[in-house]
Amino acid sequence: MPTQSREIRLARHPEGEPALDDFSFASVEVPNPGPGEVLVWNVCMSVDPYMRGRMNESISYVPPFQIDKPMEGGAVGRVVVSNEEKLPAGTFVQSFCGWREAFVAPASSLQTVDTTLASPSTYLGLLGVTGLTAWVGLFSIARLKDGETVFISGGAGGVGTAACQLARMHRCRVVASAGTEAKVAFLRDELHVDYVFNYRDGETLEHLKKGAPDGIQVYFDNTGGPQLEAALSVLTNYGRVALCGGISGYNHPVAGPRNLSAAIGKRLRLEGFIVSDHMQERSAFLAEAIPALQSGKLKNCETVVEGLDVAPAALIELLHSGAGNIGKMIVELSD
Amino acid sequence: MPTQSREIRLARHPEGEPALDDFSFASVEVPNPGPGEVLVWNVCMSVDPYMRGRMNESISYVPPFQIDKPMEGGAVGRVVVSNEEKLPAGTFVQSFCGWREAFVAPASSLQTVDTTLASPSTYLGLLGVTGLTAWVGLFSIARLKDGETVFISGGAGGVGTAACQLARMHRCRVVASAGTEAKVAFLRDELHVDYVFNYRDGETLEHLKKGAPDGIQVYFDNTGGPQLEAALSVLTNYGRVALCGGISGYNHPVAGPRNLSAAIGKRLRLEGFIVSDHMQERSAFLAEAIPALQSGKLKNCETVVEGLDVAPAALIELLHSGAGNIGKMIVELSD
Repeated sequence: MPTQSREIRLARHPEGEPALDDFSFASVEVPNPGPGEVLVWNVCMSVDPYMRGRMNESISYVPPFQIDKPMEGGAVGRVVVSNEEKLPAGTFVQSFCGWREAFVAPASSLQTVDTTLASPSTYLGLLGVTGLTAWVGLFSIARLKDGETVFISGGAGGVGTAACQLARMHRCRVVASAGTEAKVAFLRDELHVDYVFNYRDGETLEHLKKGAPDGIQVYFDNTGGPQLEAALSVLTNYGRVALCGGISGYNHPVAGPRNLSAAIGKRLRLEGFIVSDHMQERSAFLAEAIPALQSGKLKNCETVVEGLDVAPAALIELLHSGAGNIGKMIVELSD
Repeated sequence: MPTQSREIRLARHPEGEPALDDFSFASVEVPNPGPGEVLVWNVCMSVDPYMRGRMNESISYVPPFQIDKPMEGGAVGRVVVSNEEKLPAGTFVQSFCGWREAFVAPASSLQTVDTTLASPSTYLGLLGVTGLTAWVGLFSIARLKDGETVFISGGAGGVGTAACQLARMHRCRVVASAGTEAKVAFLRDELHVDYVFNYRDGETLEHLKKGAPDGIQVYFDNTGGPQLEAALSVLTNYGRVALCGGISGYNHPVAGPRNLSAAIGKRLRLEGFIVSDHMQERSAFLAEAIPALQSGKLKNCETVVEGLDVAPAALIELLHSGAGNIGKMIVELSD
């Protein structure tokens, strides 16, 4: 009997903040797997800020979601029917076939994950693309060096929590911002970030002057907007900015930094990046991250919500200034 | 009898656009040169946009001019009294002791220039720091490659005219902007720039789409402001921006680019630079520029005004949108 799978589709392109009506649910028949294929049931799915860009009609750096087609996203699932002996039933695999319960795919297109080493969702978070994004931004793009001072905006998000911890592991002074008091407390008390502030409480520039009296050498930008402008003010000569995300402007346009010309005199470098260009750095990253996770030096930080039905609300929430999630936003699917 | 030299001093820090009252003139006694020193009479002086930043009280990348002290700037002069046999009277030398008629300095602090090769003012323009700035921005910072398309704002200025010509010599498609019809005609008819537009006539973005239908790989930014925003829109993936000047904002603040987050998806790199960090590239630059100047492939573009008295007005004019100078602004001093 064919399998039924519920999935989330894009119903229409949002204007500004997405609404629940921009999403729809459908139940589709998943075919039986053919030769070399496997049937996978997802156990957890990734909810990411960049998905907002894909909901627009215009082309982002990844193709836009199509109306009435399933949305896509990172997911970890379990093989339940296998026609490929290398991926027997019971194996956990990673895919970009999230936002649905089940799917059939060629075994060769899936990546095995070792759930004895870490929980499935860790492969969407610290050990996944999220952690690698933090690593690439800090060390490949911004070339952060031991002992430098780095400012990380959106410090309590999935990428932010990974970046804060990785920078601290490299003996850097870390200044981070977040949008709720709970997040601020988490970064300060759990991740031991050197100076944390709520960017909605006072001027970011004043916080940066307090948290980094001698300036910063690196800014890891998850937000764009006013925090980028403040960072440009306190970057020291030859400072570097890793442009990773612009969540402040995903729903609504924001003003640009009025002081970008400071980059001339201070010889600043601002560089945008996308983690998929850097998959070859994954093994170096994991060689550092896995032992650190096992020894407790690194934590996988996540907020888990339950059930396919809440995924749209989780994405809407994530994009809010002052969203509730600490760390990676994960949707867990019941078996 | 000691020499009298007139000099231009900063009278007060300008608010917005500088006024003639912000400058003062004084006559000072130049001492007789001591051992190893020479007395130099300037024959031409450089007038540069960056001088506006030095007129502010706050620290730019070069120290601010001091109230009631002589302003400084690039100059070429002739040795008239020499106490150092390596620099006999009659030798032409380059210095940063401009904005005055005469000065005494250690011979070892001055650089000889060969006026049989090019006129004295060429060493302030194409063969000087101005030409080197264009070279460094295009090839070291933006890593412009043969066959690429580059947009150069402020294309008719000293740096701009050098950059347009150097890029064309490297078989690049050049799109340039300027602020008067005379400048547009000069860039099109004399320098053979592929597409030139008046940035005050229509939308820069529309001009760029017309001049570079497949987008640009490099933007050489002399202006900041709206032209930077438009350039960010048409840069292709992995595009590079050399942040060289922000003349649109020197007198008054301008809005920042609202689309800087486009740098993420397109993996853009924006990098500020100052030519004095790159003096080691001078010999490679001159090895290319001198033969090209001699063969007529490169032209030294300049606008010459006469006499120390007009230097303040020349600087004020240079900073105007739609200033009259084409190429490098030079003040020539009578003997």
